[in-house]
Amino acid sequence: MLYPYRVDARFDMDYYCDSHMPLVQRTLKPAIKGVAVDKGLAGGAPGEAPSYVAICHLLFDSVDAFQKAFESGSETILRDIPNYTDIEPVVQISEIMLD
Amino acid sequence: MLYPYRVDARFDMDYYCDSHMPLVQRTLKPAIKGVAVDKGLAGGAPGEAPSYVAICHLLFDSVDAFQKAFESGSETILRDIPNYTDIEPVVQISEIMLD
Repeated sequence: MLYPYRVDARFDMDYYCDSHMPLVQRTLKPAIKGVAVDKGLAGGAPGEAPSYVAICHLLFDSVDAFQKAFESGSETILRDIPNYTDIEPVVQISEIMLD
Repeated sequence: MLYPYRVDARFDMDYYCDSHMPLVQRTLKPAIKGVAVDKGLAGGAPGEAPSYVAICHLLFDSVDAFQKAFESGSETILRDIPNYTDIEPVVQISEIMLD
């Protein structure tokens, strides 16, 4: 999930890390194998804003495992989003090639 | 580094993982602490293309450590990009909040 940077956007990183991510883990267990959160600091050029204020990574054994877990848990998770942001996240499903 | 998806873009994932990433690690050592590569499979909606065909993560102890290492090594790394893609990557500097 990638949260695009916007100058006037609201994003509560404390709530995201301390409340939302634990909720995600509780809701998607046991399928979810790990989570990570990155906070965007800057783009590549000096003084440039980051493309994303936050990027979170949710790790599953397979796309199928993710989809099954998300089918039953997505409502709980999506309902919590307004509690920390007014940004609509970009969703991307990726395969880990190198780690 | 995020490589935006484009229908007609060229991206050689084998070269990227087997040649480019080892080059990155050799060039930026000892500052670089880890690398990871994700291959974009899909977006969030059924049948949707991923936003990025590839996302790589380079881990450093600090922004300063990254900038110093990249100052001297960037030319070698950037010169190798045409060998695997014609996509211009998006650069984002992030801080790990949760891992």
